[in-house]
Amino acid sequence: MKLAIFGYGNLGRGVEYAVQQNPDAELVGVFTRRDPASVRTQTGVPVYAANDVLAHRDEIDVLIICGGSATDLPVLTPALAKDFCVVDSFDTHAKIPAHFEAVDAAAAAGGKLALISCGWDPGMFSLARMYANAILPDGKDYTFWGRGVSQGHSDAIRRIPGVLDARQYTVPIESALAAVRSGAQPELTTREKHLRECYVVAAEGADKQAIETAIKTMPNYFADYDTTVTFITADEMKANHSALPHGGCVIRSGSTGADGAHRHTIEYALKLDSNPEFTASVLVAFARAIHRMAQRGETGCRTVFEIAPADLSPLTREQLRKSML
Amino acid sequence: MKLAIFGYGNLGRGVEYAVQQNPDAELVGVFTRRDPASVRTQTGVPVYAANDVLAHRDEIDVLIICGGSATDLPVLTPALAKDFCVVDSFDTHAKIPAHFEAVDAAAAAGGKLALISCGWDPGMFSLARMYANAILPDGKDYTFWGRGVSQGHSDAIRRIPGVLDARQYTVPIESALAAVRSGAQPELTTREKHLRECYVVAAEGADKQAIETAIKTMPNYFADYDTTVTFITADEMKANHSALPHGGCVIRSGSTGADGAHRHTIEYALKLDSNPEFTASVLVAFARAIHRMAQRGETGCRTVFEIAPADLSPLTREQLRKSML
Repeated sequence: MKLAIFGYGNLGRGVEYAVQQNPDAELVGVFTRRDPASVRTQTGVPVYAANDVLAHRDEIDVLIICGGSATDLPVLTPALAKDFCVVDSFDTHAKIPAHFEAVDAAAAAGGKLALISCGWDPGMFSLARMYANAILPDGKDYTFWGRGVSQGHSDAIRRIPGVLDARQYTVPIESALAAVRSGAQPELTTREKHLRECYVVAAEGADKQAIETAIKTMPNYFADYDTTVTFITADEMKANHSALPHGGCVIRSGSTGADGAHRHTIEYALKLDSNPEFTASVLVAFARAIHRMAQRGETGCRTVFEIAPADLSPLTREQLRKSML
Repeated sequence: MKLAIFGYGNLGRGVEYAVQQNPDAELVGVFTRRDPASVRTQTGVPVYAANDVLAHRDEIDVLIICGGSATDLPVLTPALAKDFCVVDSFDTHAKIPAHFEAVDAAAAAGGKLALISCGWDPGMFSLARMYANAILPDGKDYTFWGRGVSQGHSDAIRRIPGVLDARQYTVPIESALAAVRSGAQPELTTREKHLRECYVVAAEGADKQAIETAIKTMPNYFADYDTTVTFITADEMKANHSALPHGGCVIRSGSTGADGAHRHTIEYALKLDSNPEFTASVLVAFARAIHRMAQRGETGCRTVFEIAPADLSPLTREQLRKSML
């Protein structure tokens, strides 16, 4: 299958690496809204201007759109889905139904197939929730994130006056995790599930106490959590906080049998050194499925729920039965 | 959907309970090879003779076959797949390809749809392996079972002269699990992954030392493991070892990025109070999918790999996008 990347940031670079691990995939090119001459890819794959993408229509089986969910994807995915089979990682949960409708209309009109909201959350975590709910109708869902870097929360700290740089780690609270894993089905508040650890580089002469207060009282982002703030130097930031680890787990705790006498716990957990590279690896596997489904004549928009797992694998059905079942 | 149970042991009773948790499912009846008058169901569902199943052909959307993999299912599933949409939990991994061929031929000939090897291993563990392999092509798989009762190993102990009853627990070794979860990708021998704990009721005057030796040196079952043998009374067996808990986890540890610099761990873990009831809950969710796919005109045999997750859920695609993605 011939893939292309639209948008070349951390996620796009991750897709470039992921394609190299899949011998049945070939990377046709990277499309960027920057000056193509200014972009150097990791593996020497050609770089084109975003505006020229239509000229490459016939060379691309699936276009992987690597943009932000706030402003990029709501415009890009519907615009491109008319002419390309596309995969995106749109992750604003509340706006997924509207995004789906827009992409579905475009893809159906163009006779193409699209997949939205692919990655790990939404994506693999959504699948974990859905399978577990179908198996244990009588139960309770829990999602924990971390330990990992939240880009949105890091950005929010950077907007505070006097802050030069910041990194925020979301940290699940071990005692809450243990209670959930025990099958006790606890009711947990926001504060009881996660801590927020902040590392901040302050400008010289900045009022650190004011910065700390501004962080800890910030509504939506930090006010509902126990938050720690640690001031560090720019060198320490670079040395110790350059990576983008993340992860978390989806747990469903449920009951079966006479009067729900038997408890069961289903857990799906991820521990990721690189959030964007893992997300990219998920995108490439699902691009394979979209390519196959499009070849079978399917059109319109899909989510991860509608993809038969076998379509993600380079193995044949027979090989899968023999080696994975 | 109208379901029926063929074979009424622990698994069949589990299916009966699971149907009660699914408002869109109705249990038409239980079919047994025993005298139907001797079987009392948990919920008052009618019991019929196995030989009369064809007379109920038009009342049943999916027949869930609850039999043993050694001798029952290789015969029953192909025989029934000609006239019914069927789901089974065939779990002899090495014989799955042959079982698939037999069931596929029967189902295709009868214009019916069948699903084999459904449950948690094979089943949900197979899906966990397949998804994780598709996402991380460069990596290593690990499966740990337990802490849980192995029926096969318990039966093997019961066949030793002087043994009245036995229960064998498979126990994953914590240090091995920790090494795998760390991303270190260790090479582990059979002995390094699991312990086997045996509880044995000996006949009066039996040679306990001989029984212990017979267990610990039994090829295939125990010789390759560190095994503990504890003699208990029949009352202790009943009081402390009547349940059938099980579980385990599938872990894939893999790398992405430049020179595989970033490590990732994907883990799917189950902790089950009742192995048969959980397996039954999986069977009922997949029976829903088989019913829907059959209504769309599909025929032949499938595995869990070929079932789109959305087909397992009672929710509509729109509800799934809104609540689970």
